Amino acid sequence: MKKILILGGDGYLGWPTAMHFANHGYQVMIVDALLKRQWEERMGVRPLFPIPVLRRRVECWNKTAKNPIQVKIADIAQNHLAVYELFKEFSPDAIIHYAEQPSAPFSMKDRNGAVTTFDNNVKGTLNVLFAMREFTPEAHLVKLGTMGEYGTPNIDIEEGWLEITHNGRKDRLPYPKLPGSFYHASKVADSVLLEFACRGWGISVTDLNQGVVYGIETPETKMHPDLLTSFHYDAVFGTALNRFVVQAAKNQPITVYGEGGQTRGFLNLIDTIQCVRLAIDNPAKSGEFRVFNQFTEMFSVMQLAQKVKDAAKGIGFDAQIEILPNPRVEKEAHFYNAKNSALKLLGLKPNLLSEEVLVNILQRALLAEDVDHAVLRPEIRWRK
Amino acid sequence: MKKILILGGDGYLGWPTAMHFANHGYQVMIVDALLKRQWEERMGVRPLFPIPVLRRRVECWNKTAKNPIQVKIADIAQNHLAVYELFKEFSPDAIIHYAEQPSAPFSMKDRNGAVTTFDNNVKGTLNVLFAMREFTPEAHLVKLGTMGEYGTPNIDIEEGWLEITHNGRKDRLPYPKLPGSFYHASKVADSVLLEFACRGWGISVTDLNQGVVYGIETPETKMHPDLLTSFHYDAVFGTALNRFVVQAAKNQPITVYGEGGQTRGFLNLIDTIQCVRLAIDNPAKSGEFRVFNQFTEMFSVMQLAQKVKDAAKGIGFDAQIEILPNPRVEKEAHFYNAKNSALKLLGLKPNLLSEEVLVNILQRALLAEDVDHAVLRPEIRWRK
Repeated sequence: MKKILILGGDGYLGWPTAMHFANHGYQVMIVDALLKRQWEERMGVRPLFPIPVLRRRVECWNKTAKNPIQVKIADIAQNHLAVYELFKEFSPDAIIHYAEQPSAPFSMKDRNGAVTTFDNNVKGTLNVLFAMREFTPEAHLVKLGTMGEYGTPNIDIEEGWLEITHNGRKDRLPYPKLPGSFYHASKVADSVLLEFACRGWGISVTDLNQGVVYGIETPETKMHPDLLTSFHYDAVFGTALNRFVVQAAKNQPITVYGEGGQTRGFLNLIDTIQCVRLAIDNPAKSGEFRVFNQFTEMFSVMQLAQKVKDAAKGIGFDAQIEILPNPRVEKEAHFYNAKNSALKLLGLKPNLLSEEVLVNILQRALLAEDVDHAVLRPEIRWRK
Repeated sequence: MKKILILGGDGYLGWPTAMHFANHGYQVMIVDALLKRQWEERMGVRPLFPIPVLRRRVECWNKTAKNPIQVKIADIAQNHLAVYELFKEFSPDAIIHYAEQPSAPFSMKDRNGAVTTFDNNVKGTLNVLFAMREFTPEAHLVKLGTMGEYGTPNIDIEEGWLEITHNGRKDRLPYPKLPGSFYHASKVADSVLLEFACRGWGISVTDLNQGVVYGIETPETKMHPDLLTSFHYDAVFGTALNRFVVQAAKNQPITVYGEGGQTRGFLNLIDTIQCVRLAIDNPAKSGEFRVFNQFTEMFSVMQLAQKVKDAAKGIGFDAQIEILPNPRVEKEAHFYNAKNSALKLLGLKPNLLSEEVLVNILQRALLAEDVDHAVLRPEIRWRK
């Protein structure tokens, strides 16, 4: 039975990923420091639906399903001895690394947000790399990066590497990055470390530069109410799509920042898990730093707002679109053409953002008993 | 009087830089945590000639010269409140940031070396950026990077940015980086942060991607014996050139790692100071992330060994060149063509590595009373 260590297994993506692999016969161990929950408290926000404590959701899984999940509470960034012990004793065949501070606004709120993000994300990655080198040099690391590392260059975005011809000579080099926040910069730093560790130590890594994920349902979350995953609609940990859905469902204007021409890659939670599974089942070679762009569709923020408005209209809600000043520093109208063929070649079958999918998310949002409207406002600004 | 804050002003480059600016009428404040001295103790190495404590070298300067240097002992990475206080009270017009762990082998010795390097270098840079944003948004940051960030790509190395044409479209993007150690990776992470801070906050930065510096004399170090700067010949903090010089002067074989085809940029300490001065006197624009490649000549390690051998022969020493296995993971024969025209356009007049310069360094090395031969051996290996 292939052993999978899931770092950050209590998170929005980590938890359904853990259940998926357990459900498909892998031996799964979750590691989490529960820092995300702590950061939520600090920022004064909560997911739309209450999430059971990790102990309870794992107990629920282990009663509901055949293949149990193991859990270890440990901070991979601050406690490297715990990381070493885990790698030594569990001896994973593959590691899925989600254990990072995931919010751009959190990283931009102040110095502490930026330093916390770097300290957690980059130190965690360093500790994982040293643990792999020491105890599992043959293991495969699947690391979650972000499409936001690339920013919005005026050329096609390739998958991690770029063939460059310059002054008559050629090389294949890491794709240039233009991160849009300290969070995105921390992911760029991670990628630099991973590429070096592959080249210098011969370990194997797949860096998944993921787009914005939507959706909260997987076959496993539906097995029991306590197995749900988190849905953040707040301005710190939520996504634009989630905010739009909650606004439409609660008869609030859908708030678009700036011109709304900001274009990004998107994918369904089900496809995130599909992609991670494809990476795990088709590992990178020894010494290979493999990068996949992990998204299925591209939309501008305005297109997304319009899609939510249309889906809401279909079930009787007449939402308006309202333009707010953009709290971020980013281009609001730009070229955007990102490649995503590698995962399709491995077999990815995209689940697209249909009206049906949006209506399903809207109907879930309608069930929410307690929406905190204050957290929808963007309070964190990139510039003073 | 222009106010210059020199972070890492106790170091090999920081100290002569501080004296230069004080000698030329700038108001200079040094900040240093003396961590480099602590790391030397931990690694069991010392500079070739004893260096007075910082208090004494500053007292000596303030007695010898007309324009005094102020000093503050503070850890810019771990004590951001001290950094904020400094920026608020001294209110520098420009900041020269040398305060980083400067050794690739130190960063590769183990997990602690890698984490210490990242924690010190990247967190220090973050604290400086936030202090600038808060207290001196108009100031100019001159940050020391390294040519080693680029690695050895198969195309010309441009100065920080690259015009890329790809699939019929064009953009000017950050030059791709291939760092050769966790130290070099930390400098790449710094560059990512600096570029983002310029773009996101509008601050102005000059990133000096410096080659390997040699030489220990400047007009100011010659003013008094206690004003000397450090000369490291050990395998942790020393450079290949310094090692070769000490080996030749002490009738030891000159040890080249691997084929010796590793080619790098080099410059004289006098030119480092000349370049930093040019950057300070011709600041980057608001919001500009300006990168200069700071070196004057390129040599392979074998060419360098041969130069030292020849210079030593000229003063009666018959040194042999010995090949040792390469402790690093790096290409030993490769294309290398790095551009360095920007600083020349600003007025840099290079002082090249002549036989006279080498003989001068050799003669200084001959005066050393206590050479620790054990520290010449490369004990830190990139691969297990």
